[in-house]
Amino acid sequence: MKESGIGSQKIIRRKRDGELEYLPDDLTIEEPLEIRVGRKPIATTMRTPGHDKELAAGFLLSEGIVRARDQIGSVSVDSNNRVRVDLAVAAIGDRGSRDQRSRLQTKRFGTISSSCGLCGKTSVDAIRQNFPAIRSSDIRVDVETLLSLPEALHNAQSDFARTGGIHAAGIFGMDGKLKIAREDIGRHNAVDKAVGRAFLDELLPLDRHLLLVSGRASFEIIQKALAAGIPIVAAVSAPSSLAVEFARDSNQTLIGFLRPPTFNIYTHVERVILDSA
Amino acid sequence: MKESGIGSQKIIRRKRDGELEYLPDDLTIEEPLEIRVGRKPIATTMRTPGHDKELAAGFLLSEGIVRARDQIGSVSVDSNNRVRVDLAVAAIGDRGSRDQRSRLQTKRFGTISSSCGLCGKTSVDAIRQNFPAIRSSDIRVDVETLLSLPEALHNAQSDFARTGGIHAAGIFGMDGKLKIAREDIGRHNAVDKAVGRAFLDELLPLDRHLLLVSGRASFEIIQKALAAGIPIVAAVSAPSSLAVEFARDSNQTLIGFLRPPTFNIYTHVERVILDSA
Repeated sequence: MKESGIGSQKIIRRKRDGELEYLPDDLTIEEPLEIRVGRKPIATTMRTPGHDKELAAGFLLSEGIVRARDQIGSVSVDSNNRVRVDLAVAAIGDRGSRDQRSRLQTKRFGTISSSCGLCGKTSVDAIRQNFPAIRSSDIRVDVETLLSLPEALHNAQSDFARTGGIHAAGIFGMDGKLKIAREDIGRHNAVDKAVGRAFLDELLPLDRHLLLVSGRASFEIIQKALAAGIPIVAAVSAPSSLAVEFARDSNQTLIGFLRPPTFNIYTHVERVILDSA
Repeated sequence: MKESGIGSQKIIRRKRDGELEYLPDDLTIEEPLEIRVGRKPIATTMRTPGHDKELAAGFLLSEGIVRARDQIGSVSVDSNNRVRVDLAVAAIGDRGSRDQRSRLQTKRFGTISSSCGLCGKTSVDAIRQNFPAIRSSDIRVDVETLLSLPEALHNAQSDFARTGGIHAAGIFGMDGKLKIAREDIGRHNAVDKAVGRAFLDELLPLDRHLLLVSGRASFEIIQKALAAGIPIVAAVSAPSSLAVEFARDSNQTLIGFLRPPTFNIYTHVERVILDSA
């Protein structure tokens, strides 16, 4: 996808035959990004550089700080690993809910590691945002389309295959066409970047789309998909118990271990056309 | 290792031949744990239940809030996903550094997702703790011992193999003997649990030990190992750029892609006896 996220240095590799070789190795870059709303730092996330504006937009969306595109005034990135989002004050004042204003005033996000997507709340109750459940509709995906997603995402990547140390998130149309693909050392960041791109492009809600993540599906991934209105989430590896519970409650179809020709369906199977044969 | 971390429910699985089956599936449990110091909530982490006291102890150690075993007075867990650590006030007052007291007073940790180990700082500078680098010594590991670690850790696990959704961390002696193994949906939690056990047992510094983690090695994993004084860290998957940089600076040997018979050495190769043949 890009070269900017890759570093390089010499390492020693032990080969299968026991011989040693010295060779350059590609490493996935992990660096902190400080996210500010106006002048106020609200979170620091460990991420792979690139698409920082999208990352910030997706993060603010999934944390419920912004809910509509026109609530974001401007987004700027400086050379010092900082991204600043200025809210459209009028929009917030007119249409922002009291809940949103209170979120912005009271939230203090901590540092977010390269695999963290939840940082910022200090009690158990505060973890869940209040996004509405997906509305029932006639959205369905057939098995062949589902099975085609991993290869499509893989083909859009370069880094992951090379280093094994980077996650990917892809947003697909219902025909299996890849719309947006993003990579990051943190799975949650890859999702924030993909959803953030769609959000900035005013494509939300993504109610006719699927999300595929390259690794496991933990709770926060499903919640981020819900923030974008995505009804079907697939993961290459296992979902957690809380991810399954959350998906069930929010009317999201959750597919795990999507490794063609096999997969598991954990929730809301009615959106998968299983009898296509 | 235990059954408590596993949930179970019916799922639909598509088999290799395209047939469907309905079967129970094990899911890795992901639940929040609120960590309190005294009455003060300082962090909420998404973790797999079990070994919560160790998790809290390892977390406080790696965040620099406690540095010696006798600074912890008592640790108690309630039935509501809360763990409370009471510090030994006298010990803190007498021997705790000003830095420690200030850390405790000023730190506000946010919620930590199942893969986060850094939450709690609001600026880029605050991410690195001030642990001393590993002191040079004659500690070395031979290739055969190194290659034996993944199987030893795997044999101590049950959940990981079954669900693919749980991480493991193992602390080994220099002879390759597994001393402590812990599992969690979050890699950083597994490390906190293993290090926390050793810390509570007054085994620190672990200057004659190795740490193996089942997944990738991001920056926070290396920093947690350093907090425990561990000189050699191995990971089954890729390290990040910041992990390599940190290990180099802190005099830690970092091995990645440890998949017998192959592995990569990223830093401080002098601790690996490569010419054993």
